[in-house]
Amino acid sequence: MREVGIGIAGFGIVGGGVLSILRSHADDIEARLGARIAVRRVAVRDAGKERAVGLDPALLTTRVEDLLEDPEIAVVVELMGGVDSAFDLVRGALERGKHVVTANKALLAARGEDIFRLARQQGVDVYYEAAVCGGVPIIRTLREALASDRINSLHGIVNGTTNFILTAMDEQGARFEDALREAQRLGYAEADPTLDVSGGDAAQKLCVLAQLAFGARLKPEDVLTEGITALSPEDFRWGREFGYALKLLAIARRTGPAEGAAAGAPDQIEARVHPAFIPAGSLLAGVRGAMNAVVLRSEALGPSMLYGQGAGAMPTGSAVVSDIIDLTRNILAGSPGRVPLPPDRPLVELRPHEEVRCAYYLRFSVKDAPGVLARTASKLAEHRISIAAVQQREQNDQGQPVPLVIVTHQAREADLRGAIDEIDRYPTTLAPTRLIRIESV
Amino acid sequence: MREVGIGIAGFGIVGGGVLSILRSHADDIEARLGARIAVRRVAVRDAGKERAVGLDPALLTTRVEDLLEDPEIAVVVELMGGVDSAFDLVRGALERGKHVVTANKALLAARGEDIFRLARQQGVDVYYEAAVCGGVPIIRTLREALASDRINSLHGIVNGTTNFILTAMDEQGARFEDALREAQRLGYAEADPTLDVSGGDAAQKLCVLAQLAFGARLKPEDVLTEGITALSPEDFRWGREFGYALKLLAIARRTGPAEGAAAGAPDQIEARVHPAFIPAGSLLAGVRGAMNAVVLRSEALGPSMLYGQGAGAMPTGSAVVSDIIDLTRNILAGSPGRVPLPPDRPLVELRPHEEVRCAYYLRFSVKDAPGVLARTASKLAEHRISIAAVQQREQNDQGQPVPLVIVTHQAREADLRGAIDEIDRYPTTLAPTRLIRIESV
Repeated sequence: MREVGIGIAGFGIVGGGVLSILRSHADDIEARLGARIAVRRVAVRDAGKERAVGLDPALLTTRVEDLLEDPEIAVVVELMGGVDSAFDLVRGALERGKHVVTANKALLAARGEDIFRLARQQGVDVYYEAAVCGGVPIIRTLREALASDRINSLHGIVNGTTNFILTAMDEQGARFEDALREAQRLGYAEADPTLDVSGGDAAQKLCVLAQLAFGARLKPEDVLTEGITALSPEDFRWGREFGYALKLLAIARRTGPAEGAAAGAPDQIEARVHPAFIPAGSLLAGVRGAMNAVVLRSEALGPSMLYGQGAGAMPTGSAVVSDIIDLTRNILAGSPGRVPLPPDRPLVELRPHEEVRCAYYLRFSVKDAPGVLARTASKLAEHRISIAAVQQREQNDQGQPVPLVIVTHQAREADLRGAIDEIDRYPTTLAPTRLIRIESV
Repeated sequence: MREVGIGIAGFGIVGGGVLSILRSHADDIEARLGARIAVRRVAVRDAGKERAVGLDPALLTTRVEDLLEDPEIAVVVELMGGVDSAFDLVRGALERGKHVVTANKALLAARGEDIFRLARQQGVDVYYEAAVCGGVPIIRTLREALASDRINSLHGIVNGTTNFILTAMDEQGARFEDALREAQRLGYAEADPTLDVSGGDAAQKLCVLAQLAFGARLKPEDVLTEGITALSPEDFRWGREFGYALKLLAIARRTGPAEGAAAGAPDQIEARVHPAFIPAGSLLAGVRGAMNAVVLRSEALGPSMLYGQGAGAMPTGSAVVSDIIDLTRNILAGSPGRVPLPPDRPLVELRPHEEVRCAYYLRFSVKDAPGVLARTASKLAEHRISIAAVQQREQNDQGQPVPLVIVTHQAREADLRGAIDEIDRYPTTLAPTRLIRIESV
């Protein structure tokens, strides 16, 4: 029986999942492929460490060069994480004509362009289903099923940690700090949760998705990014009154060419990660706990959604193994390069964040004094922002701030920011105004 | 540039969608494939008919033989519908070594086994993404992404017509007849809606899905099938009180080997299509109108869901074009047979319907007389059915039936049927008991 050799770099949670799936499905995989997938080397940092999944010690190495130098290894599976060493490994593999499977979104967000260019030059494949939303086949769908379609927008819950925290805040009325502690206790959040709760992880994933869906070239720092640390149980309560659920969304949306651009100018896309109010009855509102989901809107298919587990040894391991199987099929058929890489030049440009148009929820903390509402409303009007709904809570204690909530119609981000800056300088404004964007997904 | 010739049989709504997508995306498709897809013939019943999408008259033919006999046609796209003529065409194509794309679930449900056997013998491909849930890539997902996984259950809203009707009954409190008429007026239901509202269409789709997901061999008549015609607005109201939404589901679930079977006996699966109460907060409950969705539960991925438009020229056309593109890639790479067909022997057997275990909602129409509830409850207990909740409406008119609703714990279908048969013969039972299964999706 023919055999395709693979080398795995990094053997943590996901690596263990990959190996155990390859073993338990070896017969199925052989029957489907007519060939065997042979794990020839596994590169680790510490060869002496105890591991949950048993491994023949002869396979272990601490030198990634052993993977690169083995001519029998056709596919390098990068599960190391991080950017620099992972990039060196991937570049080394591609330069030697080896195919690459990676689960590393940070690497793709930072160095994707270089990696895809090199793969194109070398005529080899790069697969990365596990890099975004582990168990959700979003990369495959964007790469293949939509080859004959045109995507207009993408809205994703792509970070399980923050969705777990927001679900707890919603369902139990928990404060952010308490929900985070609970997520850490249950293993849904890391000891240092910054990358997740800041929205940074979601921004990396959005870069990878937007490249494939729109042909965009984005770095994480290009994405308008706001995290969830400032959200309070009060925002969830207000949202419920207006019929909204509150989610951290990664959003990319085609908006057509820039206003006043020459004929033939490329489309622009908005790219942003932030908490968003969405209709309580929408499908994304029903995505709870650590689950992930991506809603696409495209010309032929209309709206569609993929939903599943975003992380974990088995879901992510399964995505890696699917990639290995696909790649092996291509190799056996002598047809690598079958699945298109992202386009080799940017097809769209980033729309400046100040030009983003949204409806907004604004929670003002104001002194309960006559004329405050009138002045706030006229300041918004002055900045071309029209009001859809207003609610003011009854006052409890003299002199305490009263919350005033205003929901606006669609407005330009720059106009909104201008109005808030001025309102926040009023002596009757007692705390910075809280702003949450509203999305109709 | 290389060229792959295709022939299309049938040129209705979907055919028009296919042609317009192939045209509008011709440049993209050529760039991705490095080859052109050339439509060489289009076989129609009536060459003189006016069509929404313009077509070179030289391409038109009324003889499907023209497709089969053209050596330049490598792919036959079957969009005729029906079983017998479609089967003749598909067989003819496969026998001549042509690949087949079909959107015909009835054909696959009735003759899938013959078609896949012939394709295997001939070493050619059969693609059928559009046959089930047009714009939802469920076939691709089952075929490829889950190659390294094991599916335990599948719950689908796979018929847009009935979901449209049930959504109207739920949201507007409409009666079935009125919701059906509205669906017909809007083009969501056909003049003769029998195949949809009886559950027959969903049963055909379930056969196609269960073959791929479980290696089952089912005919539509093997599926426990109940339609939606007997549902009343009252069932929706009761469901809401218990926290349920009401959907027509297609369900296939692995239940392990038969009780008492010898070691190594194959797993059984339940296969059923019926209205089902599901938790109001579940994702499937949020699938409204004519949309489709399929929830899979599998060992590695856990729960996942695909959601999208199930019908329509563009969603279905897009699925057909995706298949054509994939097939063309395989042909250009000289690697047909890349994507596995369903297994060539059944891997599971059908669990007898009487052994299905569900929780049930039972709505009795009983005379308001002393002892009726007690007698009903003890009859259920006698048949090993335990009660989870009871509700009885207050009586309005003397002598009128009062509804008594009982929700049971999990029970065996045969036991339940036995109890209902006896209860329905009581003189105090004024109308046949209404039974709706409860699923925790």
